[in-house]
Amino acid sequence: MPDQKVIIVGAGFGGLACARKLDGAPVNVTLLDRHNYHLFTPLLYQVATGLLNPSDIAYPLRTIFRHSRNVRFREAQVERVDLKRKVVCLAGGDELSYDYVVLATGSVDNYFGNQGVADVSISLKALPDATRLRNHVLTCLERADAARDSATRQALLTFVLVGGGPTGVETAGALTELMDIVAGKDYHDISRREVRIVLIEGTDRLLGAFSNRLGRYAQRILERRGVEVVTNRLVKNADDHSVTLADGMTIPSETIIWAAGVRPNDPTGDGTLPRLRNRRLQLDPQLRLQGTDGAFAIGDLASPPVGHQGQLPMLSPPAMQGGRYVAASIIDAVQGVRRERPPFRYVDKGTMATVGRNAGVTHLPGGLEFTGLLGWLTWLLVHIYYLIGFRNRVSALLSWAWDYLRHDRPIRIILAAGTEAKRG
Amino acid sequence: MPDQKVIIVGAGFGGLACARKLDGAPVNVTLLDRHNYHLFTPLLYQVATGLLNPSDIAYPLRTIFRHSRNVRFREAQVERVDLKRKVVCLAGGDELSYDYVVLATGSVDNYFGNQGVADVSISLKALPDATRLRNHVLTCLERADAARDSATRQALLTFVLVGGGPTGVETAGALTELMDIVAGKDYHDISRREVRIVLIEGTDRLLGAFSNRLGRYAQRILERRGVEVVTNRLVKNADDHSVTLADGMTIPSETIIWAAGVRPNDPTGDGTLPRLRNRRLQLDPQLRLQGTDGAFAIGDLASPPVGHQGQLPMLSPPAMQGGRYVAASIIDAVQGVRRERPPFRYVDKGTMATVGRNAGVTHLPGGLEFTGLLGWLTWLLVHIYYLIGFRNRVSALLSWAWDYLRHDRPIRIILAAGTEAKRG
Repeated sequence: MPDQKVIIVGAGFGGLACARKLDGAPVNVTLLDRHNYHLFTPLLYQVATGLLNPSDIAYPLRTIFRHSRNVRFREAQVERVDLKRKVVCLAGGDELSYDYVVLATGSVDNYFGNQGVADVSISLKALPDATRLRNHVLTCLERADAARDSATRQALLTFVLVGGGPTGVETAGALTELMDIVAGKDYHDISRREVRIVLIEGTDRLLGAFSNRLGRYAQRILERRGVEVVTNRLVKNADDHSVTLADGMTIPSETIIWAAGVRPNDPTGDGTLPRLRNRRLQLDPQLRLQGTDGAFAIGDLASPPVGHQGQLPMLSPPAMQGGRYVAASIIDAVQGVRRERPPFRYVDKGTMATVGRNAGVTHLPGGLEFTGLLGWLTWLLVHIYYLIGFRNRVSALLSWAWDYLRHDRPIRIILAAGTEAKRG
Repeated sequence: MPDQKVIIVGAGFGGLACARKLDGAPVNVTLLDRHNYHLFTPLLYQVATGLLNPSDIAYPLRTIFRHSRNVRFREAQVERVDLKRKVVCLAGGDELSYDYVVLATGSVDNYFGNQGVADVSISLKALPDATRLRNHVLTCLERADAARDSATRQALLTFVLVGGGPTGVETAGALTELMDIVAGKDYHDISRREVRIVLIEGTDRLLGAFSNRLGRYAQRILERRGVEVVTNRLVKNADDHSVTLADGMTIPSETIIWAAGVRPNDPTGDGTLPRLRNRRLQLDPQLRLQGTDGAFAIGDLASPPVGHQGQLPMLSPPAMQGGRYVAASIIDAVQGVRRERPPFRYVDKGTMATVGRNAGVTHLPGGLEFTGLLGWLTWLLVHIYYLIGFRNRVSALLSWAWDYLRHDRPIRIILAAGTEAKRG
């Protein structure tokens, strides 16, 4: 009997952990992703602010499974996963059949139906977003330097971030460092005081997933470094030249960075599947999609109902743990193990974020919290550890050392186009 | 009396050398370029083949003149230089007046009027070209891996380079190294023998600017490494799926890399200026544009009539020497020096190219020639020396050491889009 076929849709943290766990097992694994690399998303904002190169946080998936006997990667756009026919339909018409499928397609930005904001916002979910943001910010500075009227100049020098979670906080902190480096220096005629960085959060404090103390700390550090933190305010609309808040306040700005929420990226297109209130697919305790044959889901896309929050957090650790759990279940199944696995249980090993130079926040289970230099060092070590590839680790460490010692964010190039394959 | 105004159009090797020489002189210098970085073009092919990051060979121009009192950079698209009105017209409508202008706009690809070839070719003149080529080559491998019919697969695995000068030779050599790394490894089902790399040269040998011996050496090395070298053949046409030569031979291929010639990139649009036979602007012996007031030109764009070849070679050393010469002339003029400078004389310090690992060719004036490891080491040291910025030098050296020791070209990511500023 030939090996059974497993298809993993998506090579983010969850899909990759699942594929690695299945490497060497008696199954044929096909890992699909629309990009040919695994992306270390927590460091996207460092690419966006000129500190790291894109290749430092992106590792080619084929290289990861170069020596694997049974795991194959294929770059593909998945159009739909048909859970009834048990096939994955790819753009271009190919259909791949499976015995087991692991849906790990993650999430996409949630603009809560506000198309005007979606049209003009820059996101920070994928690698092209990060280079687009870097290009955009530097282009705003170039245009401000050449602008003749002061209103245009002020809008070009105002950067609005929406969402006070880790992405918004980290990006705001990194942007202040970039501006400290270039204002009045690379751009002789732009004073640092002219540059506004505004962080807008809908609730009453930053870092809602952390404790109150850590949220206040992050706000204090950001404000000390020149970020205007606006809480209890929602964004109502935005166009090419301004952002309007729900209370009517308008901020002239040519830049709106969206980090205010995500929604599951559902590849099934099946409206009959059970869902949680925020549209994530609802799983059974073994991370299976109820009523289907051989379909699992992990990560941001789906959750079993759990705990007091009602679901797993949309973070990389539950995705990775879920990926490994599902891989073990599949191995059990193909090896004829009859006994069902105990329900998936997420082990929280802590969460962390960095606000900038020497300032991080770390929350450990049990309530232990670090801030400042210790929080920052913890953040640094953990992120180096999880980066894939020796070369990427060395490269990121050298870049961080350079940044730290020289107060520099050296990759200040506007690299336009050069993007898609010219033909094909 | 306020300082006189100098505008340098183009921040390639010539324009940058001129601006640096004018740094600190009693003139106001505006350096214009459509990119915000100086590009070290000789290493573009290493970005295209996954060895270097774009930022390793691109250095932000504002950073170079961060501490300058009198040199300012501005990112701008120059629409036209009006030599009669003495203004530089920018896209968007701004006009900058000058007392002296230095035209250093270089060259663009010359397709000799063949629009069909121009439409489907990938060039290697600018940084987006290099990332486009990297994306394209890797996408061809992905598509070949998924292709169902063997003709499509073969065309996807055939890479045609046109032009046997240094760019064509270096790119062909680097592509073989990339294919050695990925075929049968990252791409388990693509055999190295299926991959064709074809280098087409119109004359009877490669590296026409070097000696016969060095040209033969380069051909021997490339052929030993699996490149099909086709000499005495011209490209007649190309479409999305094939390249046709003048003798009727058709090569099914989805990739044509154009390195067969350049033409001057003339910003004057003035048909009455005297020109050399290949359309370069004809200069007087002091590198001035005759019949104009205060206009100089350097680099690929222009040449005085000289020597047995009739003009200066289109290489970086004459551009840099010309830039410094013109800067000195301008300083003389503003300081009231009456005596005219002796005519510009290009000092040839040698030329070099690398064919691949341990194999370079170096020609020194006086006829001394190196090949092999010594030619390669010379090439390496000279290129490190001329790279701008300590960080870029360290980064390139580390990448080369990695490549050399590990036989790797690690930056194998297909990074699409993320390109232009989203708005503006």
